Amino acid sequence: MNWSHPSVHPVEAPPLIITDGVGGANNNNNAVVAGGAERVRMKDVQGMPGTSGGLILRICQFVFAASSLSIMASTSDFISVTAFCYLVAAVGLQCLWSLSLALVDIYALLVRRCLRNCRIVSLFAIGDGITSTLTFAAACASAGITVLISNDLGICGQNHCTRFETATAMAFISWCAAAPSFLLNFWSLASR
Amino acid sequence: MNWSHPSVHPVEAPPLIITDGVGGANNNNNAVVAGGAERVRMKDVQGMPGTSGGLILRICQFVFAASSLSIMASTSDFISVTAFCYLVAAVGLQCLWSLSLALVDIYALLVRRCLRNCRIVSLFAIGDGITSTLTFAAACASAGITVLISNDLGICGQNHCTRFETATAMAFISWCAAAPSFLLNFWSLASR
Repeated sequence: MNWSHPSVHPVEAPPLIITDGVGGANNNNNAVVAGGAERVRMKDVQGMPGTSGGLILRICQFVFAASSLSIMASTSDFISVTAFCYLVAAVGLQCLWSLSLALVDIYALLVRRCLRNCRIVSLFAIGDGITSTLTFAAACASAGITVLISNDLGICGQNHCTRFETATAMAFISWCAAAPSFLLNFWSLASR
Repeated sequence: MNWSHPSVHPVEAPPLIITDGVGGANNNNNAVVAGGAERVRMKDVQGMPGTSGGLILRICQFVFAASSLSIMASTSDFISVTAFCYLVAAVGLQCLWSLSLALVDIYALLVRRCLRNCRIVSLFAIGDGITSTLTFAAACASAGITVLISNDLGICGQNHCTRFETATAMAFISWCAAAPSFLLNFWSLASR
Protein backbone atom coordinates (compact mmCIF):
# COMPACT_ATOMS: atom_id res chain seq x y z
CA MET A 1 0.00 0.00 0.00
CA ASN A 2 1.28 3.44 -0.91
CA TRP A 3 0.04 5.52 2.00
CA SER A 4 2.51 8.34 1.63
CA HIS A 5 3.07 10.44 -1.47
CA PRO A 6 5.59 13.09 -2.55
CA SER A 7 4.85 16.34 -0.78
CA VAL A 8 6.20 18.64 -3.48
CA HIS A 9 6.69 17.33 -7.05
CA PRO A 10 5.93 15.62 -9.38
CA VAL A 11 2.21 15.01 -9.56
CA GLU A 12 1.34 11.87 -11.52
CA ALA A 13 -1.33 13.47 -13.71
CA PRO A 14 -2.51 17.02 -14.26
CA PRO A 15 -5.39 17.86 -11.92
CA LEU A 16 -8.77 17.75 -13.63
CA ILE A 17 -10.69 19.68 -11.01
CA ILE A 18 -9.29 22.01 -8.41
CA THR A 19 -11.95 23.58 -6.28
CA ASP A 20 -11.46 25.84 -3.33
CA GLY A 21 -13.59 25.59 -0.23
CA VAL A 22 -17.04 27.07 0.00
CA GLY A 23 -17.16 30.74 1.00
CA GLY A 24 -14.70 31.64 3.68
CA ALA A 25 -15.64 28.64 5.76
CA ASN A 26 -13.83 25.96 3.78
CA ASN A 27 -10.71 27.87 2.79
CA ASN A 28 -8.48 25.17 4.26
CA ASN A 29 -9.72 22.48 1.90
CA ASN A 30 -8.16 21.56 -1.40
CA ALA A 31 -9.36 18.56 -3.33
CA VAL A 32 -7.47 17.33 -6.35
CA VAL A 33 -9.23 14.73 -8.47
CA ALA A 34 -6.57 13.21 -10.69
CA GLY A 35 -6.84 10.37 -13.17
CA GLY A 36 -10.30 9.32 -11.97
CA ALA A 37 -9.05 8.50 -8.45
CA GLU A 38 -10.00 11.00 -5.82
CA ARG A 39 -7.23 12.40 -3.65
CA VAL A 40 -7.71 14.53 -0.67
CA ARG A 41 -4.76 16.74 0.29
CA MET A 42 -4.89 18.17 3.75
CA LYS A 43 -3.45 21.51 4.68
CA ASP A 44 0.00 21.61 6.28
CA VAL A 45 -0.50 22.42 9.96
CA GLN A 46 2.49 22.32 12.32
CA GLY A 47 1.87 19.44 14.71
CA MET A 48 0.44 17.06 12.12
CA PRO A 49 2.28 13.90 11.00
CA GLY A 50 5.25 14.62 8.75
CA THR A 51 5.85 18.17 10.03
CA SER A 52 8.64 19.40 12.27
CA GLY A 53 6.03 20.53 14.83
CA GLY A 54 4.61 17.00 14.85
CA LEU A 55 8.09 15.56 15.41
CA ILE A 56 8.67 17.94 18.36
CA LEU A 57 5.34 16.87 19.92
CA ARG A 58 6.26 13.19 19.50
CA ILE A 59 9.70 13.72 21.06
CA CYS A 60 8.10 15.56 24.03
CA GLN A 61 5.58 12.74 24.49
CA PHE A 62 8.33 10.13 24.38
CA VAL A 63 10.76 11.96 26.68
CA PHE A 64 8.20 12.71 29.41
CA ALA A 65 6.57 9.26 29.21
CA ALA A 66 10.01 7.60 29.43
CA SER A 67 10.92 9.84 32.41
CA SER A 68 7.67 8.92 34.15
CA LEU A 69 8.28 5.22 33.48
CA SER A 70 11.85 5.25 34.73
CA ILE A 71 11.11 7.33 37.86
CA MET A 72 8.16 5.15 38.84
CA ALA A 73 10.05 1.92 38.08
CA SER A 74 12.97 3.15 40.24
CA THR A 75 10.77 2.97 43.37
CA SER A 76 10.78 -0.46 44.97
CA ASP A 77 7.17 -0.45 46.18
CA PHE A 78 5.21 0.79 43.16
CA ILE A 79 4.19 -2.81 42.45
CA SER A 80 2.04 -2.95 45.59
CA VAL A 81 -0.33 -0.25 44.24
CA THR A 82 -2.45 -1.17 41.20
CA ALA A 83 -2.71 2.44 39.97
CA PHE A 84 1.09 2.80 39.87
CA CYS A 85 1.44 -0.49 37.95
CA TYR A 86 -1.18 0.81 35.52
CA LEU A 87 0.79 4.07 35.18
CA VAL A 88 3.91 2.11 34.25
CA ALA A 89 1.96 0.11 31.64
CA ALA A 90 0.23 3.17 30.18
CA VAL A 91 3.33 5.35 29.87
CA GLY A 92 5.20 2.33 28.47
CA LEU A 93 2.60 2.08 25.71
CA GLN A 94 2.80 5.86 25.19
CA CYS A 95 6.60 5.58 24.86
CA LEU A 96 6.34 2.87 22.19
CA TRP A 97 3.62 4.70 20.23
CA SER A 98 5.37 8.09 20.35
CA LEU A 99 8.76 6.63 19.45
CA SER A 100 7.28 4.77 16.46
CA LEU A 101 5.55 7.89 15.18
CA ALA A 102 8.64 10.04 15.80
CA LEU A 103 10.60 7.62 13.56
CA VAL A 104 7.86 7.83 10.90
CA ASP A 105 8.00 11.65 11.13
CA ILE A 106 11.80 11.65 10.78
CA TYR A 107 11.51 9.41 7.70
CA ALA A 108 8.81 11.66 6.19
CA LEU A 109 10.88 14.79 6.83
CA LEU A 110 14.10 13.24 5.47
CA VAL A 111 12.62 11.95 2.22
CA ARG A 112 10.15 14.87 2.00
CA ARG A 113 7.09 12.70 1.81
CA CYS A 114 3.64 13.82 2.88
CA LEU A 115 1.86 11.59 5.41
CA ARG A 116 -1.41 13.48 5.43
CA ASN A 117 -3.84 11.25 3.63
CA CYS A 118 -7.12 10.07 5.02
CA ARG A 119 -6.22 6.53 6.07
CA ILE A 120 -2.97 7.37 7.78
CA VAL A 121 -4.49 10.34 9.64
CA SER A 122 -7.41 8.10 10.79
CA LEU A 123 -4.91 5.54 12.08
CA PHE A 124 -2.88 8.21 13.88
CA ALA A 125 -6.02 9.85 15.34
CA ILE A 126 -7.33 6.53 16.73
CA GLY A 127 -3.91 5.57 18.12
CA ASP A 128 -3.38 9.01 19.66
CA GLY A 129 -6.90 8.96 21.12
CA ILE A 130 -6.36 5.57 22.79
CA THR A 131 -2.83 6.18 24.09
CA SER A 132 -3.53 9.72 25.34
CA THR A 133 -6.73 8.59 27.12
CA LEU A 134 -4.86 5.71 28.80
CA THR A 135 -1.99 8.00 29.85
CA PHE A 136 -4.39 10.61 31.22
CA ALA A 137 -6.40 7.97 33.12
CA ALA A 138 -3.21 6.52 34.64
CA ALA A 139 -1.91 9.97 35.57
CA CYS A 140 -5.23 10.87 37.25
CA ALA A 141 -5.37 7.57 39.18
CA SER A 142 -1.77 8.04 40.35
CA ALA A 143 -2.48 11.65 41.29
CA GLY A 144 -5.44 10.48 43.39
CA ILE A 145 -3.24 7.98 45.26
CA THR A 146 -0.35 10.45 45.64
CA VAL A 147 -2.63 13.12 47.13
CA LEU A 148 -4.16 10.48 49.45
CA ILE A 149 -0.72 9.39 50.69
CA SER A 150 0.81 12.84 51.09
CA ASN A 151 -2.10 15.13 52.05
CA ASP A 152 -4.96 13.00 53.40
CA LEU A 153 -2.99 10.33 55.30
CA GLY A 154 0.34 12.17 55.70
CA ILE A 155 2.43 8.99 55.46
CA CYS A 156 5.17 10.31 53.18
CA GLY A 157 7.79 9.12 55.68
CA GLN A 158 7.11 5.48 54.74
CA ASN A 159 6.68 6.14 50.99
CA HIS A 160 8.56 7.66 48.04
CA CYS A 161 6.13 10.57 47.76
CA THR A 162 8.49 12.80 45.78
CA ARG A 163 9.16 10.13 43.16
CA PHE A 164 5.47 9.24 42.88
CA GLU A 165 4.60 12.92 42.43
CA THR A 166 7.36 13.46 39.86
CA ALA A 167 6.33 10.38 37.85
CA THR A 168 2.69 11.53 37.90
CA ALA A 169 3.66 15.06 36.80
CA MET A 170 5.75 13.65 33.93
CA ALA A 171 2.78 11.52 32.80
CA PHE A 172 0.56 14.63 32.83
CA ILE A 173 3.10 16.56 30.74
CA SER A 174 3.30 13.65 28.30
CA TRP A 175 -0.50 13.74 28.00
CA CYS A 176 -0.35 17.53 27.43
CA ALA A 177 1.89 16.84 24.41
CA ALA A 178 -0.25 13.89 23.21
CA ALA A 179 -3.60 15.71 23.34
CA PRO A 180 -2.69 18.31 20.64
CA SER A 181 -1.56 15.48 18.33
CA PHE A 182 -4.94 13.78 18.74
CA LEU A 183 -6.95 16.99 18.35
CA LEU A 184 -4.99 18.10 15.27
CA ASN A 185 -5.35 14.69 13.60
CA PHE A 186 -9.06 14.54 14.48
CA TRP A 187 -9.57 18.10 13.22
CA SER A 188 -7.81 17.46 9.93
CA LEU A 189 -9.75 14.21 9.50
CA ALA A 190 -13.03 16.07 9.96
CA SER A 191 -12.04 18.99 7.72
CA ARG A 192 -10.74 16.87 4.83
CA MET B 1 -27.42 38.04 19.63
CA ASN B 2 -29.40 35.76 17.35
CA TRP B 3 -27.47 32.52 17.69
CA SER B 4 -30.25 30.19 16.66
CA HIS B 5 -32.21 30.38 13.43
CA PRO B 6 -35.26 28.62 12.00
CA SER B 7 -34.39 25.07 11.04
CA VAL B 8 -36.97 24.73 8.23
CA HIS B 9 -38.69 27.85 6.88
CA PRO B 10 -38.72 30.72 6.12
CA VAL B 11 -35.31 31.95 5.00
CA GLU B 12 -34.89 35.69 5.38
CA ALA B 13 -33.55 36.32 1.89
CA PRO B 14 -33.21 34.13 -1.18
CA PRO B 15 -29.82 32.41 -1.19
CA LEU B 16 -27.36 34.05 -3.54
CA ILE B 17 -24.89 31.22 -3.68
CA ILE B 18 -25.52 27.61 -2.78
CA THR B 19 -22.48 25.49 -3.22
CA ASP B 20 -22.10 21.86 -2.39
CA GLY B 21 -18.93 20.51 -0.86
CA VAL B 22 -15.83 19.78 -2.87
CA GLY B 23 -15.74 16.43 -4.68
CA GLY B 24 -17.11 13.60 -2.59
CA ALA B 25 -15.15 14.63 0.43
CA ASN B 26 -17.23 17.61 1.50
CA ASN B 27 -20.69 16.35 0.61
CA ASN B 28 -21.90 17.09 4.13
CA ASN B 29 -21.32 20.82 3.84
CA ASN B 30 -23.83 23.38 2.72
CA ALA B 31 -23.04 27.06 2.81
CA VAL B 32 -25.69 29.64 2.20
CA VAL B 33 -24.47 33.18 1.68
CA ALA B 34 -27.50 35.40 2.10
CA GLY B 35 -27.72 39.19 2.08
CA GLY B 36 -23.96 39.65 2.29
CA ALA B 37 -23.69 37.87 5.67
CA GLU B 38 -22.14 34.45 5.53
CA ARG B 39 -24.07 31.61 7.18
CA VAL B 40 -22.76 28.18 7.69
CA ARG B 41 -25.36 25.42 8.02
CA MET B 42 -24.08 22.19 9.45
CA LYS B 43 -25.51 18.80 8.65
CA ASP B 44 -28.06 17.29 11.03
CA VAL B 45 -26.30 14.51 12.91
CA GLN B 46 -28.10 12.78 15.77
CA GLY B 47 -26.24 13.68 18.96
CA MET B 48 -25.60 17.29 18.00
CA PRO B 49 -27.28 20.22 19.80
CA GLY B 50 -30.95 20.60 18.92
CA THR B 51 -31.49 16.96 17.91
CA SER B 52 -33.36 14.27 19.83
CA GLY B 53 -30.13 12.19 19.95
CA GLY B 54 -28.36 15.17 21.54
CA LEU B 55 -31.14 15.50 24.12
CA ILE B 56 -30.87 11.78 25.00
CA LEU B 57 -27.09 12.13 25.48
CA ARG B 58 -27.61 15.18 27.73
CA ILE B 59 -30.22 13.36 29.82
CA CYS B 60 -27.88 10.35 30.21
CA GLN B 61 -25.02 12.63 31.27
CA PHE B 62 -27.23 14.39 33.79
CA VAL B 63 -28.83 11.24 35.25
CA PHE B 64 -25.56 9.36 35.75
CA ALA B 65 -23.69 12.42 37.05
CA ALA B 66 -26.53 13.14 39.50
CA SER B 67 -26.54 9.47 40.61
CA SER B 68 -22.77 9.58 41.16
CA LEU B 69 -23.09 12.82 43.12
CA SER B 70 -25.90 11.58 45.36
CA ILE B 71 -24.32 8.16 46.02
CA MET B 72 -20.93 9.70 46.91
CA ALA B 73 -22.54 12.43 49.02
CA SER B 74 -24.55 9.79 50.93
CA THR B 75 -21.32 8.34 52.40
CA SER B 76 -20.27 10.09 55.57
CA ASP B 77 -16.50 9.83 55.06
CA PHE B 78 -16.01 10.94 51.44
CA ILE B 79 -14.88 14.34 52.71
CA SER B 80 -11.70 12.84 54.20
CA VAL B 81 -10.40 11.83 50.73
CA THR B 82 -9.49 14.67 48.33
CA ALA B 83 -10.20 12.59 45.21
CA PHE B 84 -13.76 11.85 46.36
CA CYS B 85 -14.38 15.56 47.10
CA TYR B 86 -13.07 16.34 43.62
CA LEU B 87 -15.44 13.72 42.17
CA VAL B 88 -18.40 15.40 43.87
CA ALA B 89 -17.33 18.81 42.50
CA ALA B 90 -16.70 17.49 38.96
CA VAL B 91 -19.96 15.54 38.62
CA GLY B 92 -21.78 18.51 40.17
CA LEU B 93 -20.42 20.72 37.38
CA GLN B 94 -21.29 18.02 34.82
CA CYS B 95 -24.87 17.93 36.19
CA LEU B 96 -25.29 21.69 35.83
CA TRP B 97 -23.80 21.79 32.33
CA SER B 98 -25.80 18.80 31.05
CA LEU B 99 -29.05 20.04 32.57
CA SER B 100 -28.57 23.50 31.01
CA LEU B 101 -27.88 22.03 27.59
CA ALA B 102 -30.76 19.57 27.90
CA LEU B 103 -33.10 22.54 28.51
CA VAL B 104 -31.61 24.34 25.49
CA ASP B 105 -32.16 21.17 23.42
CA ILE B 106 -35.78 20.88 24.60
CA TYR B 107 -36.37 24.54 23.68
CA ALA B 108 -34.78 24.01 20.24
CA LEU B 109 -36.86 20.90 19.60
CA LEU B 110 -40.11 22.52 20.77
CA VAL B 111 -39.80 25.68 18.69
CA ARG B 112 -38.02 23.84 15.84
CA ARG B 113 -35.00 26.07 15.85
CA CYS B 114 -31.60 24.98 14.64
CA LEU B 115 -28.69 25.45 17.09
CA ARG B 116 -25.95 24.39 14.73
CA ASN B 117 -24.12 27.56 13.86
CA CYS B 118 -20.44 28.09 14.31
CA ARG B 119 -20.38 30.14 17.52
CA ILE B 120 -22.82 28.00 19.44
CA VAL B 121 -21.12 24.76 18.41
CA SER B 122 -17.71 26.22 19.44
CA LEU B 123 -19.16 27.14 22.84
CA PHE B 124 -20.69 23.68 23.28
CA ALA B 125 -17.49 21.93 22.13
CA ILE B 126 -15.32 23.90 24.59
CA GLY B 127 -17.79 23.36 27.44
CA ASP B 128 -18.16 19.67 26.68
CA GLY B 129 -14.36 19.29 26.42
CA ILE B 130 -13.78 20.90 29.82
CA THR B 131 -16.60 19.16 31.71
CA SER B 132 -15.97 15.72 30.22
CA THR B 133 -12.21 15.97 30.93
CA LEU B 134 -12.90 16.99 34.56
CA THR B 135 -15.44 14.17 35.01
CA PHE B 136 -13.06 11.60 33.50
CA ALA B 137 -10.15 12.81 35.66
CA ALA B 138 -12.31 12.63 38.80
CA ALA B 139 -13.61 9.16 37.89
CA CYS B 140 -10.05 7.90 37.28
CA ALA B 141 -8.75 9.36 40.56
CA SER B 142 -11.67 7.81 42.48
CA ALA B 143 -11.15 4.50 40.72
CA GLY B 144 -7.47 4.55 41.77
CA ILE B 145 -8.46 5.11 45.43
CA THR B 146 -11.28 2.55 45.30
CA VAL B 147 -8.98 -0.14 43.89
CA LEU B 148 -6.35 0.76 46.52
CA ILE B 149 -8.89 0.40 49.36
CA SER B 150 -10.60 -2.77 48.15
CA ASN B 151 -7.88 -4.75 46.35
CA ASP B 152 -4.46 -3.49 47.50
CA LEU B 153 -5.19 -2.79 51.19
CA GLY B 154 -8.34 -4.94 51.63
CA ILE B 155 -9.93 -2.56 54.16
CA CYS B 156 -13.48 -2.58 52.81
CA GLY B 157 -14.76 -3.50 56.27
CA GLN B 158 -14.01 0.03 57.51
CA ASN B 159 -15.11 1.82 54.33
CA HIS B 160 -18.15 2.16 52.06
CA CYS B 161 -16.44 0.33 49.18
CA THR B 162 -19.65 -0.55 47.34
CA ARG B 163 -20.89 3.03 47.35
CA PHE B 164 -17.50 4.39 46.29
CA GLU B 165 -17.36 1.87 43.44
CA THR B 166 -20.94 2.63 42.34
CA ALA B 167 -20.35 6.40 42.39
CA THR B 168 -17.15 5.93 40.36
CA ALA B 169 -18.92 3.69 37.83
CA MET B 170 -21.74 6.24 37.44
CA ALA B 171 -19.17 8.99 36.82
CA PHE B 172 -17.52 6.81 34.12
CA ILE B 173 -20.91 6.19 32.45
CA SER B 174 -21.63 9.94 32.55
CA TRP B 175 -18.27 10.54 30.83
CA CYS B 176 -19.12 7.89 28.22
CA ALA B 177 -22.22 9.93 27.36
CA ALA B 178 -20.32 13.26 27.46
CA ALA B 179 -17.44 12.19 25.18
CA PRO B 180 -19.66 11.63 22.07
CA SER B 181 -21.20 15.10 22.57
CA PHE B 182 -17.72 16.64 22.60
CA LEU B 183 -16.45 14.61 19.63
CA LEU B 184 -19.56 15.33 17.55
CA ASN B 185 -19.41 19.07 18.26
CA PHE B 186 -15.66 19.14 17.56
CA TRP B 187 -16.15 17.15 14.34
CA SER B 188 -18.93 19.41 13.08
CA LEU B 189 -16.89 22.49 13.99
CA ALA B 190 -13.94 21.17 11.95
CA SER B 191 -16.10 20.06 9.00
CA ARG B 192 -18.12 23.29 8.74
